[in-house]
Amino acid sequence: MTTHTLAIGLDGIAVAETDLSLVDGQNGLLVYRGHWARDLAIHHTFEEVAHLLWYGHLPSAQELAELQDKMRANRELPAHVKGILDLIPADVDMMSVLRTGVSALAAPDHAWPPSLDQVISLTAKMPTIVAHRFARLAGREPLNPRQDLNHTANYLYMLKGQEPSPAHVRALDAYLILTQEHGMNASTFSGRVVASTQSDLISSITAAIGALKGPLHGGAPSEVTEMIEAIGTKENAEPWLRAKLENGERLMGFGHRVYKTIDPRATALRVVASQLSADDPWFDLATHVEQVGLKLLDEYKPGRKLHTNVEFFAAAVMRAVGLDDFLFTPTFAVSRVVGWSAHVLEQASNNRIIRPQSNYIGSMPE
Amino acid sequence: MTTHTLAIGLDGIAVAETDLSLVDGQNGLLVYRGHWARDLAIHHTFEEVAHLLWYGHLPSAQELAELQDKMRANRELPAHVKGILDLIPADVDMMSVLRTGVSALAAPDHAWPPSLDQVISLTAKMPTIVAHRFARLAGREPLNPRQDLNHTANYLYMLKGQEPSPAHVRALDAYLILTQEHGMNASTFSGRVVASTQSDLISSITAAIGALKGPLHGGAPSEVTEMIEAIGTKENAEPWLRAKLENGERLMGFGHRVYKTIDPRATALRVVASQLSADDPWFDLATHVEQVGLKLLDEYKPGRKLHTNVEFFAAAVMRAVGLDDFLFTPTFAVSRVVGWSAHVLEQASNNRIIRPQSNYIGSMPE
Repeated sequence: MTTHTLAIGLDGIAVAETDLSLVDGQNGLLVYRGHWARDLAIHHTFEEVAHLLWYGHLPSAQELAELQDKMRANRELPAHVKGILDLIPADVDMMSVLRTGVSALAAPDHAWPPSLDQVISLTAKMPTIVAHRFARLAGREPLNPRQDLNHTANYLYMLKGQEPSPAHVRALDAYLILTQEHGMNASTFSGRVVASTQSDLISSITAAIGALKGPLHGGAPSEVTEMIEAIGTKENAEPWLRAKLENGERLMGFGHRVYKTIDPRATALRVVASQLSADDPWFDLATHVEQVGLKLLDEYKPGRKLHTNVEFFAAAVMRAVGLDDFLFTPTFAVSRVVGWSAHVLEQASNNRIIRPQSNYIGSMPE
Repeated sequence: MTTHTLAIGLDGIAVAETDLSLVDGQNGLLVYRGHWARDLAIHHTFEEVAHLLWYGHLPSAQELAELQDKMRANRELPAHVKGILDLIPADVDMMSVLRTGVSALAAPDHAWPPSLDQVISLTAKMPTIVAHRFARLAGREPLNPRQDLNHTANYLYMLKGQEPSPAHVRALDAYLILTQEHGMNASTFSGRVVASTQSDLISSITAAIGALKGPLHGGAPSEVTEMIEAIGTKENAEPWLRAKLENGERLMGFGHRVYKTIDPRATALRVVASQLSADDPWFDLATHVEQVGLKLLDEYKPGRKLHTNVEFFAAAVMRAVGLDDFLFTPTFAVSRVVGWSAHVLEQASNNRIIRPQSNYIGSMPE
């Protein structure tokens, strides 16, 4: 029997050539279709960057207006999907609810091949699913999407029940842009494997949400806020963090599997978050924790090059705009669906089924 | 920037070492944990082979009784899942319904790590989801699962509304056993990618259902029945098939991406189906079509070694036991969930995140 080259984890194996993004962890670079993600986050909006990833270029004013109109027109959930969300018991976690809600969007017009119209419709509806559920859990009636607000502002409005400040919209927009796309991570890859069978977009995104749900991928961003809250005061930062490191424990918000230098998303989010939270005591504490953490990591793990990762500043932004911890990963999905769907379109444009092998190490029949 | 080894499609790359199955397409071998799948299909039952795949050995009489009891006790759907199924519009296809129904089974006791209890509960409920929907589409009240019937017999009972004959149960059981497991195909792989993030079993199986939905994987088994019905009579077989081949078209039910010789599942199903359908004119016609097809493929595509595949006889069995074409792929999922869940358990027992790379071929920022 044949034994195949074994590549558990698929480290260092490229499963696609892509126009969508370059993730260069050695050099701390993140490029979306020829643009620095950092610059896009600081100078552009969610819809503009989504247009870049989906259509291949930043939109003209007219193209942007058209995309915004299409997204606004697609935010509302079909009545049966709202009914389905309302039947899910209250103790089911938000990522499972999002997965079921997206799966329930299946309709005959969502068949293979994936189309830009399908992608826009699905991306527009993801915030509505999260906000619908969030409102029900809070015991209030879900709000209808606001036609006069852009994607991010409308998401915050539906979650919080009031129009958000421009500063909050700007900060969350930057976070969402920076997490729209990130190469061939596990969720994106699962979506491409599903698409490679000529299954539909909904099936791919449902799979990707399930993968992002896992803490080894979607992370546990609430661990950063919990850490900072446990520290409590600037004076407590060094003894608290030192005790963790003496104990051999990991510090939350530092280090990344891919980035061996500064995570470029962290750099951009630090800029955005600092503008937003200059006077905020919580952000002041978080910045102090970061500095102490970096100093101590250098002392305890010299040469490991552990830097602040995107989760650290994601937690700061989420906290600043007032999102609860359990909304962190669903909000990540609300942005990453842009990259997932761009990858599904790319996979479909030049498809080949992704069908690896396994090596059998069991016994043979006598 | 780094360029990684490119392996689009992952042909010939093993992503896991597995105890579960050997699929040797060159030699036409299929082994489940040390047993020939062919022998298992002819001599054992759905529950016995599921026990083999999940626990690593065929059950003792007591182990079998315990597994059967657990499966019977888990067939019923929670009320909210029935409600969710009933809200899905009638024009949504059965695989999308199954994907949403399985996703809706999420519950706090379904968290990581995956367990045998979770696996048994989910496997027991899949037929109930399909049968519930099928009954609604037919305008009748879904039947409750029958506690006195085994897995396969109860599935047929819930679908057809009457207790099936032992011969029908035997034939469908053999088909379900032969499709329980098949190495690292796209659906199984998507389920393992999701599990590798430490996401839950429900997320993995939801992803796998989405992958199986794609016709490049789950196939289009109804194409075989449509072909045989289009042929209609034995006399018409040769001219009809010859015209297809002259036209450069593929014949349905012949050839397989993996098997370059006789598909061992087809061999076993031919035995089972022939016992069942010896007097059946449709099966008589199907057998004739097979012989003519093989003769003509040898004439038109010499050296290609195109053999009858499992879909050909799957169509014969499904048709013989009276299942509609649109139940073919959902029924495939009802059996394959055994292998999917065995792979998720195997992945979790020695986990490493599956995180490949992509090569960026877009432009760089100026």
